[in-house]
Amino acid sequence: MPGIEEEVVQQAGRAEAGAGTGDMSPEEFRRFGYAVIDWIASYLEDPTRWRVTPATEPGAVRDALPPSPPDEPESMSDVLEDFERLIVPATTHWNHPRFFGYFPSTGSGPGILAEALAAALNVNAMLWRTAPAATELEQHTVDWLRQLLGLPTTFRGVITDTASVSTLYALAAAREANAELRVRQDGLPGRAEIPRLRIYASEEAHSSVEKAAVTLGLGQSGLRRIPTDERFRMDPEALAAAIREDRANGILPIAVVATIATTATTAVDPVPAIADVCEREGLWLHVDAAYGGAAAVLPEMRWIFEGCDRADSLVVNPHKWFFVPVDCSALFIRRPEVLRRAFSIVPDYLTTAEDDRATNLMDYGVSLGRRFRALKLWFTLRYFGASGIADRIREHLRLARLFASWVDEHPEFERIAPVDFTLILFRHRPPQLTASRNGAAAGSDDQAAVEAALAEHNARLLEQINATGEVFLSHTRASGRYALRLAIGNLRTTEQHLAYTWELVRRIAGAT
Amino acid sequence: MPGIEEEVVQQAGRAEAGAGTGDMSPEEFRRFGYAVIDWIASYLEDPTRWRVTPATEPGAVRDALPPSPPDEPESMSDVLEDFERLIVPATTHWNHPRFFGYFPSTGSGPGILAEALAAALNVNAMLWRTAPAATELEQHTVDWLRQLLGLPTTFRGVITDTASVSTLYALAAAREANAELRVRQDGLPGRAEIPRLRIYASEEAHSSVEKAAVTLGLGQSGLRRIPTDERFRMDPEALAAAIREDRANGILPIAVVATIATTATTAVDPVPAIADVCEREGLWLHVDAAYGGAAAVLPEMRWIFEGCDRADSLVVNPHKWFFVPVDCSALFIRRPEVLRRAFSIVPDYLTTAEDDRATNLMDYGVSLGRRFRALKLWFTLRYFGASGIADRIREHLRLARLFASWVDEHPEFERIAPVDFTLILFRHRPPQLTASRNGAAAGSDDQAAVEAALAEHNARLLEQINATGEVFLSHTRASGRYALRLAIGNLRTTEQHLAYTWELVRRIAGAT
Repeated sequence: MPGIEEEVVQQAGRAEAGAGTGDMSPEEFRRFGYAVIDWIASYLEDPTRWRVTPATEPGAVRDALPPSPPDEPESMSDVLEDFERLIVPATTHWNHPRFFGYFPSTGSGPGILAEALAAALNVNAMLWRTAPAATELEQHTVDWLRQLLGLPTTFRGVITDTASVSTLYALAAAREANAELRVRQDGLPGRAEIPRLRIYASEEAHSSVEKAAVTLGLGQSGLRRIPTDERFRMDPEALAAAIREDRANGILPIAVVATIATTATTAVDPVPAIADVCEREGLWLHVDAAYGGAAAVLPEMRWIFEGCDRADSLVVNPHKWFFVPVDCSALFIRRPEVLRRAFSIVPDYLTTAEDDRATNLMDYGVSLGRRFRALKLWFTLRYFGASGIADRIREHLRLARLFASWVDEHPEFERIAPVDFTLILFRHRPPQLTASRNGAAAGSDDQAAVEAALAEHNARLLEQINATGEVFLSHTRASGRYALRLAIGNLRTTEQHLAYTWELVRRIAGAT
Repeated sequence: MPGIEEEVVQQAGRAEAGAGTGDMSPEEFRRFGYAVIDWIASYLEDPTRWRVTPATEPGAVRDALPPSPPDEPESMSDVLEDFERLIVPATTHWNHPRFFGYFPSTGSGPGILAEALAAALNVNAMLWRTAPAATELEQHTVDWLRQLLGLPTTFRGVITDTASVSTLYALAAAREANAELRVRQDGLPGRAEIPRLRIYASEEAHSSVEKAAVTLGLGQSGLRRIPTDERFRMDPEALAAAIREDRANGILPIAVVATIATTATTAVDPVPAIADVCEREGLWLHVDAAYGGAAAVLPEMRWIFEGCDRADSLVVNPHKWFFVPVDCSALFIRRPEVLRRAFSIVPDYLTTAEDDRATNLMDYGVSLGRRFRALKLWFTLRYFGASGIADRIREHLRLARLFASWVDEHPEFERIAPVDFTLILFRHRPPQLTASRNGAAAGSDDQAAVEAALAEHNARLLEQINATGEVFLSHTRASGRYALRLAIGNLRTTEQHLAYTWELVRRIAGAT
């Protein structure tokens, strides 16, 4: 890094100014702080200097590190040099504009600076008293987010680390909403009067729903997967039938999780019809819009939230497609008092004089300690402005449609899911593997064999693509078909990056 | 902030260089990045320029913010100015050297710089493939921590956000360790063959244990509180008796939580005797050493971990007394495969080619998304070195004993718990409230009245002390007695800060 050569001066500076605390002196902090800022500026200017995924093998990083911690203090120069030498080259670069795996995200400039300031203040926003500004800024920025997405004024928001935790909290509230079960007080096991409890989500819903069911003690069988239609959307008729069947078998349904943009295919569940079922059956409706919800900042995409004003809770992750560095998930909830009942436990040493007139955010989840995550959301929303964020999301949607059109126009490639957001699922279908398709009335054995061959071929293709280090795609299966998964969401991704990627994919597939 | 006056230049720079992405141009990032670094350097140089707790009322911050997010982008100058104008003055300054509430912590220089770099890389360490360096550095630095604290080589560590979550994970593993219950698969409710499950912890154990019991579906009654001795330590005989009684009543004990340095009084539970009980009864032993565990870096404090080599899991928070910014909690576990069984759910889209030879950290908890928290732990451990950290912790222990001696020597103050760590519990006992104490054979009604009067007097005293903004103490109750709670743990706290505080406390109490 620039500015880290004068080690002798620095060490001397530390010995003098920081002797009492062991921490960096202001001069030292400034010097290395500038070096860090310079490095980040240069990094973000062109992350394509690095491979997207590193050419490293499991264990290589640990092998390069000393087996034991240093006894004596080390210089910040050495630490930063090792960061550049050992960490950066062994990093998968999520900020690389050709990172297209999973759902891309962006650590934007304003968000990065906010994280540095949050670490400096180092507040713990467990109680209003311990962090008045962080507490109120969290409530306020989440409400700004609510407004940006057109969500109802009745929703109150809290920030968690990830959508998995937001969904866990929402389903804990759903369990607590059945107050007559007295789950908080008496628990679930060994109580003859408690029936099996069940949550419903589509076959395409995220694994975090199942993880929440397991954590909350409902078990994997406490989640029932509902079939989807040809566009991977939950079938509300099948949902209603499943609930009827379960009730007939003495099972107590408690919640339905609908998804706005599923992870595998970005399908949008029919929330209005699902909300009808939930209202009729008295079930908690949680909406997982972790990635896709951001698109509602656009008037033309506001349709995705149709019916969500009837939800009990909804999660959107600003750290996914709102350019806020991880971690930042916003959980909206219509009856925050139920969430509070599910989690609030206040020992004497955590009572304060303001308890009756201020919100103590520790009451709304598992974690007592809470970082000042709202700061990066505030910085990012203000720096970009609603219009700035909308512009980028609109551009990403355009890029996705463009890439989809390239796939559609190519005779050897096949797209295997609709593109309503920024995810394109596609596969290579080389002529030699499509023989039976072209033949008349191929049997199902033939079809299965073709599918298996296509899966193997595309898995190999994916491996070869990612091995270049030039781009990173992930994969999924949709209706049993193996698909390459290209998702757009990084601020720095342009049409040129996509064209380069498409060229690379075709070249490796031998389908120019 | 310095360097933020040339707004016109900046806005022009943005229009040109960042037009494509909306993000800051490298020049703009450098300029505002330097301003942020300067601000932090100046902040940390002397946090005593601010009140420890702000003179702000609930709602004031929100009232000062625009009700809606900006439509157009705002300049970084305005954002940073508002940070200084609205946020900093309404912040409780955990980095203030006279912050003595709860357990103090420090956002150290190396940790702050690491957080900025982590936000820039913005990796999600859910899979090895998505973050090789972050994954392996997490495993490695947590192992360094294990070595520093003298914990057994059989312990494997993962980083979570907070001790509350670490304890939740440990108890989820304890539940899963009873594999024959099939909790993961079939859940707890509606199964006649599942008895009531129970966890044991002392009356002084942290509220997070109860919160974990509620979250996991065991309910508040799924936690049984064990009485403590005169030094607030769990009574192992009472533990054994409670387990016997519960078994006789058809309840299934599954885990015991022992605490090394409780929150209210820093009591150390007798782990060897508790481990005997756990081994005899086949129970999971979890040790909560969230704050106090750090002291084991000192040979003379290593005794606190006696018996902990027999624990199944143990939590220590580097963000408490190891000078790492929040959030960073280390969960050690002897059988990581049990934790994995409790939480691992892997959909097809999260499978990778390295799954059989690399650790995917998402498998060990609820959160799928995981920040690069190990970076700040690595920076901090290296910058301070083991000896540097030990020196500061030793100094904090000396300061605590010193403050305790001042309390002990003063006729009007009373210390009401042993000082084995850095927490001093004390109260003012003015002559006019101790009449009955000096009289012969005061009745229990008299004693209760004195206690109530002392509680009221000390609560008022605490309010007056904290209202000065010069220091911040919190409170607790120990054996029913209301106590002021002064904890030492910030890097910048010196003997002078304590002397100043003691002078202030005496002056306000009218007991100079």
